[in-house]
Amino acid sequence: MEYGGFFGKMLRINLTDRTSQVEKLDQEVLKKFVGGSALGAKILYDEVPAGVDPLGPDNKLIYTVGPITGTNAPCASRLNITTKSPLTGAIGNSLSGGHFPAEMKKTGYDAIVIEGKADKPVYVLIKEDRVDIRSAEKYWGLNTQDTQNYIKEDLNDLSLRISCIGPAGENISLMACIMNEARAAGRKGVGAVMGSKNLKAIAVKGDKEVPVVDPERFQAAIREVLRKLKESDVAYPVFSKTGTVLAVDGTSALGVMPANNFRDTGVVDYSKALGTKAYAEYDQTKNPCYRCPMSCTQVRMARGGKYAGISTEGPEFETIYSMGSVLGIDDPELVIAADRLCDELGIDTMSSGVAIAMAMELYEEGILTETDGLELKFGNKDVVLPFLRMMAYKEGFAKIFADGTKKAAEYLGEEAKYYAMEVKGLELPAYDVRGLKAHGLNYATSYTGADHNRGYAFQEVFGIPIPHAVERLDIEGKGKITKFNQDFASLPDILTMCEFPVQQALTDVAQKVAADLLSAATGLEFTEEEVWQICERLNNICRMFNVREGFSRKDDTLPRRILEEPIKEGLSKGERISQEDLDTMLDEYYEARGWDENGIPTPEKLKELGLEDTIEAVPSI
Amino acid sequence: MEYGGFFGKMLRINLTDRTSQVEKLDQEVLKKFVGGSALGAKILYDEVPAGVDPLGPDNKLIYTVGPITGTNAPCASRLNITTKSPLTGAIGNSLSGGHFPAEMKKTGYDAIVIEGKADKPVYVLIKEDRVDIRSAEKYWGLNTQDTQNYIKEDLNDLSLRISCIGPAGENISLMACIMNEARAAGRKGVGAVMGSKNLKAIAVKGDKEVPVVDPERFQAAIREVLRKLKESDVAYPVFSKTGTVLAVDGTSALGVMPANNFRDTGVVDYSKALGTKAYAEYDQTKNPCYRCPMSCTQVRMARGGKYAGISTEGPEFETIYSMGSVLGIDDPELVIAADRLCDELGIDTMSSGVAIAMAMELYEEGILTETDGLELKFGNKDVVLPFLRMMAYKEGFAKIFADGTKKAAEYLGEEAKYYAMEVKGLELPAYDVRGLKAHGLNYATSYTGADHNRGYAFQEVFGIPIPHAVERLDIEGKGKITKFNQDFASLPDILTMCEFPVQQALTDVAQKVAADLLSAATGLEFTEEEVWQICERLNNICRMFNVREGFSRKDDTLPRRILEEPIKEGLSKGERISQEDLDTMLDEYYEARGWDENGIPTPEKLKELGLEDTIEAVPSI
Repeated sequence: MEYGGFFGKMLRINLTDRTSQVEKLDQEVLKKFVGGSALGAKILYDEVPAGVDPLGPDNKLIYTVGPITGTNAPCASRLNITTKSPLTGAIGNSLSGGHFPAEMKKTGYDAIVIEGKADKPVYVLIKEDRVDIRSAEKYWGLNTQDTQNYIKEDLNDLSLRISCIGPAGENISLMACIMNEARAAGRKGVGAVMGSKNLKAIAVKGDKEVPVVDPERFQAAIREVLRKLKESDVAYPVFSKTGTVLAVDGTSALGVMPANNFRDTGVVDYSKALGTKAYAEYDQTKNPCYRCPMSCTQVRMARGGKYAGISTEGPEFETIYSMGSVLGIDDPELVIAADRLCDELGIDTMSSGVAIAMAMELYEEGILTETDGLELKFGNKDVVLPFLRMMAYKEGFAKIFADGTKKAAEYLGEEAKYYAMEVKGLELPAYDVRGLKAHGLNYATSYTGADHNRGYAFQEVFGIPIPHAVERLDIEGKGKITKFNQDFASLPDILTMCEFPVQQALTDVAQKVAADLLSAATGLEFTEEEVWQICERLNNICRMFNVREGFSRKDDTLPRRILEEPIKEGLSKGERISQEDLDTMLDEYYEARGWDENGIPTPEKLKELGLEDTIEAVPSI
Repeated sequence: MEYGGFFGKMLRINLTDRTSQVEKLDQEVLKKFVGGSALGAKILYDEVPAGVDPLGPDNKLIYTVGPITGTNAPCASRLNITTKSPLTGAIGNSLSGGHFPAEMKKTGYDAIVIEGKADKPVYVLIKEDRVDIRSAEKYWGLNTQDTQNYIKEDLNDLSLRISCIGPAGENISLMACIMNEARAAGRKGVGAVMGSKNLKAIAVKGDKEVPVVDPERFQAAIREVLRKLKESDVAYPVFSKTGTVLAVDGTSALGVMPANNFRDTGVVDYSKALGTKAYAEYDQTKNPCYRCPMSCTQVRMARGGKYAGISTEGPEFETIYSMGSVLGIDDPELVIAADRLCDELGIDTMSSGVAIAMAMELYEEGILTETDGLELKFGNKDVVLPFLRMMAYKEGFAKIFADGTKKAAEYLGEEAKYYAMEVKGLELPAYDVRGLKAHGLNYATSYTGADHNRGYAFQEVFGIPIPHAVERLDIEGKGKITKFNQDFASLPDILTMCEFPVQQALTDVAQKVAADLLSAATGLEFTEEEVWQICERLNNICRMFNVREGFSRKDDTLPRRILEEPIKEGLSKGERISQEDLDTMLDEYYEARGWDENGIPTPEKLKELGLEDTIEAVPSI
C-alpha cells in the first residue's frame, strides 16, 4: 500500500553532473524511520561511506521532512538537514522551522539529497515538478537576507521559500549555518558543507496539498494538541509572550547561566540585564512559523545608541548566552545586533560566540596576543561585531577561530585546549552542566556533540517531573534519564513537530499524539511503542554512524573545565562533573541503552531495533 | 464618457479620524492633468491652503499614478508623491519606480490622498477593495527593509508591495525619504511628512486589470517604444549594462563632477575610481522595475574589507557623487555601504551626503568644532556611516545637519551659509552647474529647488541635440532651452513612464508616443500639443503653488559659491555663473515662460493654460 502523508518520494540532485532524479522511498524504510531526523540519518548512513571527507563531493546534504509536515497540524513545519559534520566528524543534523519546511513538503518530496559538487556557484529551484540547477554566481557573496530577496525578485516570485548560505558558508567556516528567512539550521557546520558544494541556495514553491489518509482521526489528534496547548501553564501564558529568553531567568536562578567562557558562572546574575523583563522592552512584532498558534518568535529591535534600528528574530536564549553572558556582556542591544549579523553572515550564533569567549580568555591569559587591534577582554562589546565578520570572512587572527574552538586549540597548542568549551568539536550550549548532571551527560553522549536539543534535561532545568522528578545534582539515575531524554527529544525530530509544544504541553501524551498523527496521516498503524522505538532507533543508527567513524567511549567526555574546575559562585557553587562521576553516569547510560562498556551498541540491541545492517560496523574486539 | 486606463478613482484616507472614502475624479481635471506629477500638483494646489505647516495635519501626502501605469507598456511603473515640502516650503514631488506603482494602480485607484495625523503609528493596507488602517506600533523603529519583510510575514502575503519610512522619517529628519523595496522617493523630505502623520507604511495588493480602451493603438505605440529603445545607441548597448554610473564618466570628462563640497571640482578625476569600469567589478545581479526591458538597476556588492558582503541597488550616479566625490572619497565600496545604509534608514542619499560635505568643510574651516569625536576631514570615509546614522536619529552634533544644509546654516550663523550647497533648501545634485549653464538655470528655477530631474540639460551633459545643439558654456539661449527642458522632463512625470527611455530613445517622438499611449489608454484624444501643454501646465501650477507661498524671483538663485567662486581645475576651470549671467538667463527664461520680470506667471499665461483658478494667487503690484 501507499503511504498517505508521505508522498514517498525522494529527490536526488547531483551537482557534479547537474542532474536530478526522483526516487521512490522504500516503504519499509519509511515505516522504520518515518521522517525528519531518523529518515535523514538512515539515508546518510546508507549512502555515505566511512571516513568520507565532510567537505568533499562524496559527503551528502540531506533535507528531510515528514508525514505531518505542511499539513494543518500545528507547529509542524520542521526541516531536518543531515550530513557528516565537518565540525565534529560525527553525524550532524540541524533543524529549523519557519515556512520553508512546509513549502518543501508541498513540492511533493519528503527528502532532498544533494550530492557531488558544482564547478561553479549554483542554486536549485524546485517548482511545479521541475528541478532547475541555475547559476548563482551573481548571488555569491551576498548575505542571507539579500540572497533570498534577490532570488525572489529575479524570478518574479515573491512567494518562494529559500534556504541558503551566507558569506560564512561560502568561505567554509566550519561554524556556518543554513538560513531560511531568519531561521537557522544553525549548528554542526551544515552551511560549510553546502558551501563546499558550491550550492548557494535551494528555492522551493509548493503546489501540492499534503495528503492525509484518515482526516477524521488526524483532526482529532490535532484537537488534542490544541487542547493540551491551551491547558498548559507555560505555552500561552508565558512562552508565547517571552519566547526562549525565559530560560535566562531559570538558568540564572539555578546559577548555571555560563559567564566568561564558563570561568565565572554564578558570579554575576544576568537575569536582570538579559532576562525576560529586559528583553520585553525590545519586542517589536512576532513572526510565527507556519501554522504555529504559539508564536514564540519575538522580533526585537535595538532602540538607542549605535545599534538603534537593528532588529532580529530573537535573540533566542542560546544567543543571549553566546553573545551575552559567556562574553561577560550585559547589553541586550549588542546581543540583538550580533544575532542579526550572524544571521546575515550565515554563521552559528552559538559556536561563534563560544569561539569569541575562548579568544577572550586566551587574550586575558596572555596566550593569544595578536588580535588585529581588538581588545579582547570579557565584557568589551565593541569587539563582537568585527570579530564575527572577520570569522565569516576568515580574516586576520580571527581565521584561527573560524572553524570552531577545537580547531583553534589544535592550532594554538596544548595550553589553549583547556579554554575550548566543546564536546566532539561542537561548542557548548547555554547551560553550565556542572550544575545539571543529566544535561551534562547528554552533552557527553549526544550523537552530535554538545547539543542541548538532542536530550534536553527539562527535569533538571525546569523541574518538570516527566517521567519522574529528578534532582539536578544527583549522579545516580542520570544514565537512565538521559536515555529517556534523548529518545524523548527525538520524538519531535522524527515527527517534524516543534519541540516546544511537545515539551511544554504534550509531555505525557506525546507518544500517543505522535502515534495518532502518524497513523492518521500515513494510513499505517503506528503504536505508541513503535513511535518510541523509532526514537531509540534514531539514537542507535546515529551512534553506529559515529562508531563506524571511530567514535567510542573515549569521545563521550566533557571539557576539562567542566570535569575539574568547580563553579565559582551562586546556587551551583562548588559543582563540577568529575571524571569519576562522568564514568558512573556513562556506565549507567550505556547499560540503559544496551551498549557495551565501551559505548558500542551490542549486536543484540541492533537486531532488536531492526538495525541488523549496521552490525558490520561494530568493531571486533 | 468614462476614461479607460484611468479608473478615475481617488482614495482619500483621513488618519485623524481613521476613515477612508473613494471619490470620483473630475473628468475635466483628468483631461487637463492626466496623472502622475500633474494630477498630484492639481490636488495639492486645490486642497492645501497657503502657509500650511508642512509637518502639520493639514498638509497632505498624495500618491498618484497615471493612465498607463501598470499596463504592459514598458517602463511604466512610476509613482509620484506630492506634498508641501518641509525641506523647501515649496511644492515637493518625489518619484520612484519598482513594482509598487503598478501594484497600486491595480488596486483600482489613480490617486491616494493621505490627510490628517494618526494619534499613534499606523500603516494602511489596501487590498481587495478594502482599506484597513492598522496599528504600526510594532513596526515603529524598524528599518525600511525589515518593515516591508515583517508586514508581509505578519499578513502572510509575500506579494504585497509596500511603501514605507525608516527611522529618519519617524524622527522627522527633513531629508527623510519614502522607500518601496529598495526604491526611494528620495527627495524634498516626503518621508518627514509621512512620519509627521505617524504613517509607517502603505501596503498594496492589486487585483484589477488596468483597462485600455483601444488595445490595438496602445500596442502599436508600445511597439514604437520598443523599436526606438532597440535602435538607441545608449539604452541597451550601454545604459542597461552600467546604469546611471555612466554619468560619472561624462561629468568627469567635462570637469563638472563636484568634489569636496564643490570647493575642488576638477582637481581630482574621479572617473577612474568611481566610474563605470570601477563599478563593473561590483555587479552582482539586476533588479529591474516592473516591465522594464532595460533594467538599469545594477545590484552591487562590496567584496573585501569591512564592507564585504554589503549589497545595494545601485549606487546610482547621484549617490556616487553624494557619498563619494563631494566628500572627497574615492572608495566605491564605502559608497555601496552608505547607499545601503541610507536606504535602510530611509534618508535621501543626496541631501544627506551634501550635508556631510558641508559639515566637513565647516570642520576644515574651523567653524564646526564639536563633532562627537568624528574627524570630519574630506576623504575620511570612516565618518560617513556613523554620521548618517546619527542624522537619522538626530543624535549629537549631527542633529544640526539632519534637516538639511539650509537649516544647518540658519543654526550655525551667517559664516556657515556660504557652505550650504542648496537652492530653496534642496541640496544640489551631482553636477557642478558652473560648467553647465542651462542645468544651473534649471536648479535656480525648478519648482522643487535644485532638482536635476525636473529639467535635465541633456544637451549640455551628453551633447544630445534635442531640439537643437547647445553650447554648455553659453549664457544666451539658456532661458529658452531651460523652459524646453523643464517641460520635456515633465513628460515622463505626467505619463508615468521612466525618464530614461524618454531621454535616451524616444527623444523626438516622445510627444507623439505619449499622445498615442494616453489616447489609446483613456479613449480620449490627446494631441501632441495637448500633451506638451500639460507639461507646461504642470510647471505653471507648481510655480503658482510656490507664488502663493511667497516665492518669486528672489528665490530663483544659486549658492554663493556657484555665483562667485570659479571652478578650480579641469575642463570647466574658471567657470562660474555670475549674478549678471544668472539675471540674463532668468530674464530670458521668464519671457519664454510668459512670466513677468519678477517670475510671476501672468494672468494671460494662466488663462492660456486653463489655470484661471490660480490667478487669485498672483500678488497685486
